[in-house]
Amino acid sequence: MSRVIVASVGYTKVGDHWDKSILDLAVEASKKALKPHPNIKPDTIIVGNMFSSQSARQEHLGALLASALNLVGTPAFKVEAACASGGVAFNVGYHLVRSGEAASVLVVGVEKMRDLDVAETSLALTMAESAEYTQFIGATFLSLNAMLARLYQETYNVTRDELSAFPVIAHQNAATAEHAQFRKAISVEDVSRSPLVSDPLRLLDCAPIGDGAAAVLLTSDKLVEEDDEVEVLSSKISTNVFSLYERDDMLTFSATKEAARKAFSEAGIGVEDVDVLEIHDAFSVTAALSVEAMGFSKPGEGAKDASAGVYSLKGRYPALTFGGLKGRGNPAGATGLYQIAELWLQLKGRGGLNQVEDCRIGLAQNIGGVDTTSVVTVLARR
Amino acid sequence: MSRVIVASVGYTKVGDHWDKSILDLAVEASKKALKPHPNIKPDTIIVGNMFSSQSARQEHLGALLASALNLVGTPAFKVEAACASGGVAFNVGYHLVRSGEAASVLVVGVEKMRDLDVAETSLALTMAESAEYTQFIGATFLSLNAMLARLYQETYNVTRDELSAFPVIAHQNAATAEHAQFRKAISVEDVSRSPLVSDPLRLLDCAPIGDGAAAVLLTSDKLVEEDDEVEVLSSKISTNVFSLYERDDMLTFSATKEAARKAFSEAGIGVEDVDVLEIHDAFSVTAALSVEAMGFSKPGEGAKDASAGVYSLKGRYPALTFGGLKGRGNPAGATGLYQIAELWLQLKGRGGLNQVEDCRIGLAQNIGGVDTTSVVTVLARR
Repeated sequence: MSRVIVASVGYTKVGDHWDKSILDLAVEASKKALKPHPNIKPDTIIVGNMFSSQSARQEHLGALLASALNLVGTPAFKVEAACASGGVAFNVGYHLVRSGEAASVLVVGVEKMRDLDVAETSLALTMAESAEYTQFIGATFLSLNAMLARLYQETYNVTRDELSAFPVIAHQNAATAEHAQFRKAISVEDVSRSPLVSDPLRLLDCAPIGDGAAAVLLTSDKLVEEDDEVEVLSSKISTNVFSLYERDDMLTFSATKEAARKAFSEAGIGVEDVDVLEIHDAFSVTAALSVEAMGFSKPGEGAKDASAGVYSLKGRYPALTFGGLKGRGNPAGATGLYQIAELWLQLKGRGGLNQVEDCRIGLAQNIGGVDTTSVVTVLARR
Repeated sequence: MSRVIVASVGYTKVGDHWDKSILDLAVEASKKALKPHPNIKPDTIIVGNMFSSQSARQEHLGALLASALNLVGTPAFKVEAACASGGVAFNVGYHLVRSGEAASVLVVGVEKMRDLDVAETSLALTMAESAEYTQFIGATFLSLNAMLARLYQETYNVTRDELSAFPVIAHQNAATAEHAQFRKAISVEDVSRSPLVSDPLRLLDCAPIGDGAAAVLLTSDKLVEEDDEVEVLSSKISTNVFSLYERDDMLTFSATKEAARKAFSEAGIGVEDVDVLEIHDAFSVTAALSVEAMGFSKPGEGAKDASAGVYSLKGRYPALTFGGLKGRGNPAGATGLYQIAELWLQLKGRGGLNQVEDCRIGLAQNIGGVDTTSVVTVLARR
């Protein structure tokens, strides 16, 4: 077994990239990640992407990227698990290096969402749900999460303003993050009074649509030697009952819970050891249920804790430190790699205005569907 | 490192499955593969699929299948590399078991093609090629291969009847294969006089469109003990310059050549040790260039050798032993797993009327695009 190092990272700004193709974005992020290590030619390239076939009529992204990077011959393929595609691609790359099969792997997450109109994007994202049941009855990914938010508020007496806390934290941090889609702070009132899009979710409860790519170069510890290297301590995937309506307990994110349990166990750490975390805040309710499933908050207290400052940049568990999905943006298949890149910045002390002080251990949680697939990854600076 | 065993296989008949969804097909093949080992619960599920989003408006196949198999919690994801999706999924599963990360992995290839009309299917398959260049100018996957066939015939003086040899072998073997799409022998004249579809390729040069799923259960040798176990000796992926028109030498399948070189090397065998082979005969010309790239035939002699009987069931290198892509069928993302399942049948001596005598070592070659991605896998009965 090799120790696995995140040797470098690269990413584009998230937003509207009308002048760039999906390949352009992937190449830009990849070149930035490869640049600091000109002598490393990755043994494998893995692309995390959800719906390039819908947005760009393009499959076969792995070989396409290998060729564009002048890395012809390199094994390359795409990994897909809805919005967890990036996290799962990272997980596969991690295992290839850890096992010694590869000395280095370039993992790239990319999504082009803005070439579809809003309705098409909503339909594309809803392909994370069952075509035969959930899609068939007309539920969208947004409306499913809205129903979950209502259940969450009613079960735990969560107020509208408490639910607004995570988006406020996200935008607060995005305001000073150069690569974020929305660099603008918002107030609790802004969220709580923004237009309803699917009752009770309001516009500012929901992560936006945007284009972007993020890449990380994973290497064996034998290949790169640095004093402050960022090591992958663990990366675990788990799955939940596929459809929300089939679950006995819709408010427990059991995929996240199980992935976190395994990731903590393999890393040999507990919740209290985490210094910085990136969670999958696709919706305000998703953020709340995520921190609860991993044990950072008690059941029903995620949004309340956020409201009390626990997840703010100077709180006990700084989260969404460059804006999360809500503020930095959520280019579906790229999101999981943005999370890793951002943890890397934090652990390296390169967080600029968003730096979390004295952080050594970081955790990323990346979801596909409504906690249908979840990937939890733990990184540490040595 | 664990030795990796193909413990069992399962598959559906290839053809028109109007009454079954993509999930139904994947479940059917998976259950067959899992049945012989009721005590093994796979540690990971990997799905090879190319375009479920186009044909079934369904992404997130990994978690969907895990849930349908009552394997909730199991890590699950999809792998895509065009028509090599199945072979690449197998490769990823192999590495997870080999490294000890998983004791068992269920790898399932599935594609539902017949729910699209023929034009839509052609467009979906052409997503293996560059959207910005090749697709943009209107070339289809078929027309690219037609141009390659013309170049092949003109460069090496390959006659029309010689080019017809691989489809004849495929149908000869498919006639007695229960799971094949076209159980009908055809003659050289049938191929050479079938309707032109893209000059010089004729209807019977081209693998058909069909639905299907194939699954294999991979395990560590510590988990399953049998006398005649089928072991994976090696599995290697390589890539070529993405677009055919950019290649210096279009007639050398360099991805296949490199993947085979590495696969032979790691398995510690040479061409002459292979007893049975499954090649990616998407078109007659593809079969010819594939055997040439791997060294079974000299450059320019693949089709001629096929014509001379080298690749027939009782020839020196029996190929397409249950019909290959042409006769058994080519459900894109499933094809690579059908190949593995068929080699398993041969090596176990369960080939029925299609059994290759005294075979111990089998090789599968699975391509995405025009040799853009290639996976070569070597199996052996111990």
